[in-house]
Amino acid sequence: MDQYVELPAQHLKDGAKTSEDVPLIVEEPLEIRVNGLPYAVVMRTPGHEMELAAGFCLTEGIVDSFPDILSMGFCPNEADELKNIVQVIVKNASDIDGPRRNARVLSSRSSCGLCGVQMLEDLDRRLSPLEDGPEVKAEDLVRMQYGMLEQQELFRTTWGGSHAVALAGAGGEIIVVREDLGRHNAMDKVIGHAMMNGIDCRRCVALISGRISFEMVQKAVRAKIAVVAAISAATSLAVNLAERTGCTLVGRLRDRDMLIYTHPSRILG
Amino acid sequence: MDQYVELPAQHLKDGAKTSEDVPLIVEEPLEIRVNGLPYAVVMRTPGHEMELAAGFCLTEGIVDSFPDILSMGFCPNEADELKNIVQVIVKNASDIDGPRRNARVLSSRSSCGLCGVQMLEDLDRRLSPLEDGPEVKAEDLVRMQYGMLEQQELFRTTWGGSHAVALAGAGGEIIVVREDLGRHNAMDKVIGHAMMNGIDCRRCVALISGRISFEMVQKAVRAKIAVVAAISAATSLAVNLAERTGCTLVGRLRDRDMLIYTHPSRILG
Repeated sequence: MDQYVELPAQHLKDGAKTSEDVPLIVEEPLEIRVNGLPYAVVMRTPGHEMELAAGFCLTEGIVDSFPDILSMGFCPNEADELKNIVQVIVKNASDIDGPRRNARVLSSRSSCGLCGVQMLEDLDRRLSPLEDGPEVKAEDLVRMQYGMLEQQELFRTTWGGSHAVALAGAGGEIIVVREDLGRHNAMDKVIGHAMMNGIDCRRCVALISGRISFEMVQKAVRAKIAVVAAISAATSLAVNLAERTGCTLVGRLRDRDMLIYTHPSRILG
Repeated sequence: MDQYVELPAQHLKDGAKTSEDVPLIVEEPLEIRVNGLPYAVVMRTPGHEMELAAGFCLTEGIVDSFPDILSMGFCPNEADELKNIVQVIVKNASDIDGPRRNARVLSSRSSCGLCGVQMLEDLDRRLSPLEDGPEVKAEDLVRMQYGMLEQQELFRTTWGGSHAVALAGAGGEIIVVREDLGRHNAMDKVIGHAMMNGIDCRRCVALISGRISFEMVQKAVRAKIAVVAAISAATSLAVNLAERTGCTLVGRLRDRDMLIYTHPSRILG
């Protein structure tokens, strides 16, 4: 499937309407099935579905590493033009306790008490603190920023319709850039790419084109990425989680002007 | 709870590190319980929780109108400093078939076949086509844009950490603006505000500070808002849904320069 389509629209400018074909980023649902059961539907931009599914399984805590995924593939019963279901077979199926309690995901708990605290603890589950991580020069973060921008073709084509996440080495050299209408998907795709290609995320930096929320840090930490940088700002909970898990968080990256929210020693000035 | 907090960070600029307190948008989980059972956890910015819960119940298809909500309130068992659970009691509890199949929400279906098509049909369920809607002058959309921007205080304070949605009358007069780290929440909050204050959304325009995805159109159509405009671009599926449901979609609103993706007759040049 294409990542963008051209559709006719009316362009209204200074009182005059003209018909124009405009490029739109493609949004399609992808169902991820784990061991035969539907697990989640993600609205995503087509492309790199196996990366997305692999990264999703890791960052959702369904698997702990790529070898835990025994097989992945599109549903063979789907019509050819539809590639909207990925079937994943994983080891230790009995460990899967249903969808994680992420944003807008079903909550299956029914106890109360110190609910808010429990909720946050549940959100954290399966996160081990990071033990290691690269040191990165500020100038290399700047290099990454321009390296990613260069590869954000879909962003330019769709007039800002997509987010991007880049995975880079500690020296700022871009390993992979993925674009998607959802930041979470772009993150899952680069993580899945690393899993499928034997790239050790512990030596990598993730760069996000937008903002950093709790879930973005959660995904990075699950993948053992210890340095996460973003062009935009972080949320309170993202900073809180990064602090607790030993993740270096950098935001508002504008050339050589940036905020280091947590664990600043990994960033060399 | 506050909507932003100041936390210490390192500001690295041109090689020099200084300590600074930086304002961060607050992100907290909110559990929405429907008739005693956990339904969803939403990552949101605190404030206007009853609006959020009411809007969520309407846009998720749990209720069809405000009178279907018999009561709403924070969980009385929570500690005072935590306001992270809203309990909603609704009529016709037996109609609730579990969480909707939105982005990253559990899918409970297990059939296959023409999966992709079924999935989209399921995503559409409980959406009736719009029958009515206001006519809006392009210059009034521009007025709304500046009216909303004026009220985006949290956006300015948190250096771009929040999205906004405004609900306005057909003449461009702002009725309410809500800011939240999530676009979906901001939309649910303005819709909840309208529900709780007897405002007829069929005469209103919704203005979104960011991009328009499928789910944003879905929410608007559920609330019977027939004109949706956004500062940024729309996705393919958003345009497709707006076309089918009779919703006028406007994007890339930059002063008197805008794209009308669907049903352009409601926008007067």
